Amino acid sequence: MQTVAIAGVGLIGASFGLALRREGFSGPILGVSSPDAISAARQIGAISDAVSLEEACSRADVIYLSQTVDRIAETLKAMGPFVTHETLVTDAGSTKVTICAAAAQHLPDRCFVGGHPLAGKETRGAQSADAGLFRGHVYILTGMQGRTSPHFATFNDYLEKFGARVVQLTPQQHDQALAFTSHLPQIVSTALAAALSGQSNPHLRSLFGPGLIDMTRLALSPSDIWSGILNDNREFVLQAIDRFCDQMKITRREIASGTVEGIFESAREFALEVRKNAR
Amino acid sequence: MQTVAIAGVGLIGASFGLALRREGFSGPILGVSSPDAISAARQIGAISDAVSLEEACSRADVIYLSQTVDRIAETLKAMGPFVTHETLVTDAGSTKVTICAAAAQHLPDRCFVGGHPLAGKETRGAQSADAGLFRGHVYILTGMQGRTSPHFATFNDYLEKFGARVVQLTPQQHDQALAFTSHLPQIVSTALAAALSGQSNPHLRSLFGPGLIDMTRLALSPSDIWSGILNDNREFVLQAIDRFCDQMKITRREIASGTVEGIFESAREFALEVRKNAR
Repeated sequence: MQTVAIAGVGLIGASFGLALRREGFSGPILGVSSPDAISAARQIGAISDAVSLEEACSRADVIYLSQTVDRIAETLKAMGPFVTHETLVTDAGSTKVTICAAAAQHLPDRCFVGGHPLAGKETRGAQSADAGLFRGHVYILTGMQGRTSPHFATFNDYLEKFGARVVQLTPQQHDQALAFTSHLPQIVSTALAAALSGQSNPHLRSLFGPGLIDMTRLALSPSDIWSGILNDNREFVLQAIDRFCDQMKITRREIASGTVEGIFESAREFALEVRKNAR
Repeated sequence: MQTVAIAGVGLIGASFGLALRREGFSGPILGVSSPDAISAARQIGAISDAVSLEEACSRADVIYLSQTVDRIAETLKAMGPFVTHETLVTDAGSTKVTICAAAAQHLPDRCFVGGHPLAGKETRGAQSADAGLFRGHVYILTGMQGRTSPHFATFNDYLEKFGARVVQLTPQQHDQALAFTSHLPQIVSTALAAALSGQSNPHLRSLFGPGLIDMTRLALSPSDIWSGILNDNREFVLQAIDRFCDQMKITRREIASGTVEGIFESAREFALEVRKNAR
């Protein structure tokens, strides 16, 4: 792994570049992105050069696609004619079924591994990038036919050096689980903020405690990134919404009848368990 | 204000005692609570002595009720025969209509001011207390007939010294606003954790990012405190749940049809505004 290319040097792509540098990678890091994103990423040292997608395909041993999920599918199609058989192509998209299918279609017999770092922020762009973004978080790898690339082992080693916990799943398992643990919390935060925003009571904008701040953090997330994710994973996302709305109905009924303790206990147990597993 | 009594020395009551000490109050701080709570509060210096409610009524210039909301109503009834006409009685309960009505009934012609510091944690007890808990947060005062107490001005000055932003509302305005900005976020966090907890997919307990951690923090809150709040404010809480569930239905429809941008924009605007107002 002498040369790396990053397509889409926003929060995740630029953090990947910074993390490579911090862990001692000294080769060229090529950026494929818009002029503004390139300029921000170069300024913080996340990339060394700006190149076209075609040049990235001819020069890089590892190509890291960290664009929005719909753009990643387009990029896989566009790079099809140029990717060599040894190059490792991987991505950081928040959905995996569609992207792995696009890779199978457009990069047949080439080395693709789908990826998804379960790390992020509600802010975007290289200016929010952080070499430590992946530390302590799960990094899912999926669609593993690309492990035949001679560069896969080195790439995987870097993920470990970043402090990420690498987990392998099928694309289907990934999209189903994340519909519940990532996409649903995003939707709930957005719907909560939208519901309050639709009320005319002016006190709702000034009288709140720290709980509302936590519960509306995800509502700050960029809509263009999320509309791609939600469109892509629509089926599992609608299932997750339906389960949540069923639970809201049960909760409403228990509040109406004055017996909420049971729901609080199972919720608390789950919240404690995810905190234990997050360590 | 020579002597203060605190009934219920949990997180809020013990933080009130610590904050008084930090701002220079040197008189006795009497605690009325269970033996375990008294012991924890005395250990951290939040109270100086343990007394009965009757003794607290005869000795204290200010009596601070920081129990669960149903206990506060009971305490108001129990203290009725003992409170003098000059003593300021105030509380820190999360609902205000019922408590102010109980004070009007059981302490007629005495000095009661309802209170609610919009600060808190998902943990409980004096061991979580913090002299800085109120800093930067709104402190609502309501049912203001108690400002005729000669001790009200000093009490109010201490709240300002704690760094709280004192806001006056009617009990009704309080309960309606907090149903949306505090009770609804609590219910949504609990329902989200309960919905995930009810799924058999084992990945839901290990594959998640920082968003799920934020969105389930409130789900750690103690059920006994919250069942009292939700029972007490049931009517407004059910209204808030219904508005939120309407918004979830709209959001589901927009995800199904692939047009979520509008909801994200209004949600983001609201989330930005509350952050600006939190400063």
